[in-house]
Amino acid sequence: MKLEYMQKALELAEFSRQDVPIAAVMVQNDKIISQAVNTREKEQQAINHAEILAIIRANKRLQNWRLNGCELYVTLEPCPMCASAIIQARISKVYFGAYDLINGAFGSKCDMKKIMNSNIEVKGGILEDECTKLIKNYFERIR
Amino acid sequence: MKLEYMQKALELAEFSRQDVPIAAVMVQNDKIISQAVNTREKEQQAINHAEILAIIRANKRLQNWRLNGCELYVTLEPCPMCASAIIQARISKVYFGAYDLINGAFGSKCDMKKIMNSNIEVKGGILEDECTKLIKNYFERIR
Repeated sequence: MKLEYMQKALELAEFSRQDVPIAAVMVQNDKIISQAVNTREKEQQAINHAEILAIIRANKRLQNWRLNGCELYVTLEPCPMCASAIIQARISKVYFGAYDLINGAFGSKCDMKKIMNSNIEVKGGILEDECTKLIKNYFERIR
Repeated sequence: MKLEYMQKALELAEFSRQDVPIAAVMVQNDKIISQAVNTREKEQQAINHAEILAIIRANKRLQNWRLNGCELYVTLEPCPMCASAIIQARISKVYFGAYDLINGAFGSKCDMKKIMNSNIEVKGGILEDECTKLIKNYFERIR
């Protein structure tokens, strides 16, 4: 785990305008192979969470749906859709920033690892304060 | 619920070659607005389950990420990724054919309705024998 990748995700998320600021960075062999921000509102696509878009782009780049050995850094705990996509894409490690008590699927609301019998390595709370603040500020701004 | 839409999904799934034959049909106001087959292997995209592709195409067609009032017909019980995507896309009703005891997320392996506190209407077992047979034949063929 390298903090610089979560820092990179945080920087990406800050560019978000219409959408909740969430970003993801996919790393393979200590190099970024894809990155994405949440664009559900902007693109009017229900599935356009940052994690899903990062997976699509990594699959395209590697020409392979299997992302064994890849590490995903994401500013917010993945929802059930994303957690299941991450596991099905064979990603090896996930590092997330803020915990999501309402939708988080790596322990907070449900445990997708357990549901899908996965041994993926997951660690939350990376740069947690910064990640939490970014989302909190967004919701205070739009209120 | 109309059997003709599941029949349509079955016909679509039969065209599948490299991939497990699963298809989905999205219906709004008694008209098909999108349809898709599973293309994970063909396109080398981990998220290319039939349901996800049907949602992407419906969102694009309606220029709206919310699919309230839409009904999804799918030949196999959705996995956690797809079940969560279906709920987040605000689809009103889901009809599936075969039950998936290993990955099914509308009751078989887990209950995404309960996990996500959703009141989406779900009914499984529509043309169950035909849907089950299609997948069974595929796995017997590739063995």
